[in-house]
Amino acid sequence: MTENGSIQASVLGLGAMGGALAEALVRAGHGTTVWNRTPGRADALAAHGATEAASARDAVRAGRLVIVCLLDHASVREVLDPLAPDLAGRALVNVTTTTPEQSRELAEWAAAARATYLDGGILAVPHMIGKPGSSILYSGSGEVFREYRTVLDLWGTGTYFGEDAGLASLYDLALLASMYVMFAGFLHGAAMVAPSGMTARAFAGMAAPWLSAMTSGLEGFAAVVDGGDYTVAGQQSLEFSDLGDILAASAEQGVGTEVVDAVQQLIRRQIDAGHGKEGFARIIESLR
Amino acid sequence: MTENGSIQASVLGLGAMGGALAEALVRAGHGTTVWNRTPGRADALAAHGATEAASARDAVRAGRLVIVCLLDHASVREVLDPLAPDLAGRALVNVTTTTPEQSRELAEWAAAARATYLDGGILAVPHMIGKPGSSILYSGSGEVFREYRTVLDLWGTGTYFGEDAGLASLYDLALLASMYVMFAGFLHGAAMVAPSGMTARAFAGMAAPWLSAMTSGLEGFAAVVDGGDYTVAGQQSLEFSDLGDILAASAEQGVGTEVVDAVQQLIRRQIDAGHGKEGFARIIESLR
Ligand SMILES: NC(=O)c1ccc[n+]([C@@H]2O[C@H](COP(=O)([O-])OP(=O)(O)OC[C@H]3O[C@@H](n4cnc5c(N)ncnc54)[C@H](OP(=O)(O)O)[C@@H]3O)[C@@H](O)[C@H]2O)c1
Ligand SMILES: NC(=O)c1ccc[n+]([C@@H]2O[C@H](COP(=O)([O-])OP(=O)(O)OC[C@H]3O[C@@H](n4cnc5c(N)ncnc54)[C@H](OP(=O)(O)O)[C@@H]3O)[C@@H](O)[C@H]2O)c1
Repeated sequence: MTENGSIQASVLGLGAMGGALAEALVRAGHGTTVWNRTPGRADALAAHGATEAASARDAVRAGRLVIVCLLDHASVREVLDPLAPDLAGRALVNVTTTTPEQSRELAEWAAAARATYLDGGILAVPHMIGKPGSSILYSGSGEVFREYRTVLDLWGTGTYFGEDAGLASLYDLALLASMYVMFAGFLHGAAMVAPSGMTARAFAGMAAPWLSAMTSGLEGFAAVVDGGDYTVAGQQSLEFSDLGDILAASAEQGVGTEVVDAVQQLIRRQIDAGHGKEGFARIIESLR
Repeated sequence: MTENGSIQASVLGLGAMGGALAEALVRAGHGTTVWNRTPGRADALAAHGATEAASARDAVRAGRLVIVCLLDHASVREVLDPLAPDLAGRALVNVTTTTPEQSRELAEWAAAARATYLDGGILAVPHMIGKPGSSILYSGSGEVFREYRTVLDLWGTGTYFGEDAGLASLYDLALLASMYVMFAGFLHGAAMVAPSGMTARAFAGMAAPWLSAMTSGLEGFAAVVDGGDYTVAGQQSLEFSDLGDILAASAEQGVGTEVVDAVQQLIRRQIDAGHGKEGFARIIESLR
């Protein structure tokens, strides 16, 4: 860190997300070196004061803090593998989306290279970086998280989950799973109403506040799951949750039922096992 | 309607929901006659001023407005079929959950019996009836909706979608489909994080605000669907949305992937058809 609190950081990867992360650093006045495989993506950043490195190696050598935001795990390994000697003594923050196992593998690789490793999972789209609502999950080196906290906070609210480098990826992917499944459920509903002449926008106008309100029920399901007793009173039963009417109406509208069918299977499996009077949260037992 | 604006209403079915609907009528001072197949469920309502009818026929004869809230379509037909002559000249409001076809069938049946028919889909749980957030979708007789508006508004915000009696059921089931799929997505995420020691409650603490925030993206998907051009700029592509990492991480955690798999199939079908660079909203084309 320099006397004025600014740090020398490098960003590898200037895609939509890497570019947004680098921009936040430059705007905050940190010395920022950037690199991208395909040239030309650094021009706007350079105009704001970033330094474009000629190679990934040059970029790594320029930063105490090395941020990696590439497409996937394979591209990270491809770029970093030859740079192990250059990374020694530096802090490596990898916010590329990977599986927990891949994060752990890279943490081990970094340890062998004598770099400190922090893994991140970004819960935001690029234009949200540095704005309210942007949230980033971290795990791995607590030392890196603490030392560079002010830098990381430029991107969004950071939460640190512990030394296991795989945790941030795990929690990130679990939240993304919930999100994609919700998106698919919304599009299923939009497909159902379309033949009646309702626009997807009109449906979104109903569905967005409805789904948002229904997220208030998640804590109740969670309490039942944690309690382990699916028979506690006041829950909607699995029998009551049978999706037969929804499946029939979807078929009436000529809409494919695969997503709703998958949920119905989770429900039916518990009913068939004799748990029909128990709460809906029990479908988690169909998943594990 | 009597001089003081109160009306004579009858409620058939005093389950959790029918009981809540009847209670709202009684509390508002409407003359309310109630009936339930199994006796004994009217006692609390009677103590608040409701009249218990000895038979469904007696209940129908006591009300200008007849509200039906039974388990399903079959139970509605079972109870109403013998009462066609008694329903002539009355307004029938059926808020039992049914498919659109079943609603239309009952509307035709009611027309033959010379009753006016309004179908309703309740977007609330019983304890929400009459409270903020309770919403009820209606379609069928606009005359009934207008004449009894003040009564219907006792239960929640009513929205009327037109003379086609099937529309309320269709929109209700489409919103319920979105909700159940979202619940399943949440429980999938909770199952993913469980082996790491994170409680379902801690996961809900992250997932509820996250999913709620992500509902703000639904309008964008909807605009693309309505526009019919999945190539417009600024969208997350199908290739980018590949759920491979989520599926791999789920498998790593020993979590069943059926729900996420179903979503992945919708994505892959569009990618395989050559649309990988187009927007995620295109998965709706996999459904229809
Ligand atoms: N965009 C989002 O909304 C979002 C949200 C959360 C997390 N993320 C994560 O952030 C990461 C980057 O996403 P993005 O939106 O920035 O993606 P992007 O716009 O597609 O950019 C991908 C970047 O990876 C580089 N790259 C790909 N393969 C490479 C290789 N073999 N060697 C070197 N560089 C390679 C690309 O370089 P070239 O320019 O040379 O192709 C580009 O800089 C991903 O892991 C993504 O999951 C993104
Ligand atoms: N509860 C909710 O959160 C909710 C939300 C939205 C919509 N709804 C809809 O509202 C309707 C009623 O739900 P609920 O929660 O009140 O269910 P419930 O508590 O299970 O009550 C079911 C009612 O239907 C009656 N019934 C069932 N089969 C019958 C038959 N063959 N003949 C005569 N009566 C019969 C039952 O009478 P007995 O007492 O004699 O069994 C009882 O009054 C359902 O269509 C449901 O989908 C409910």
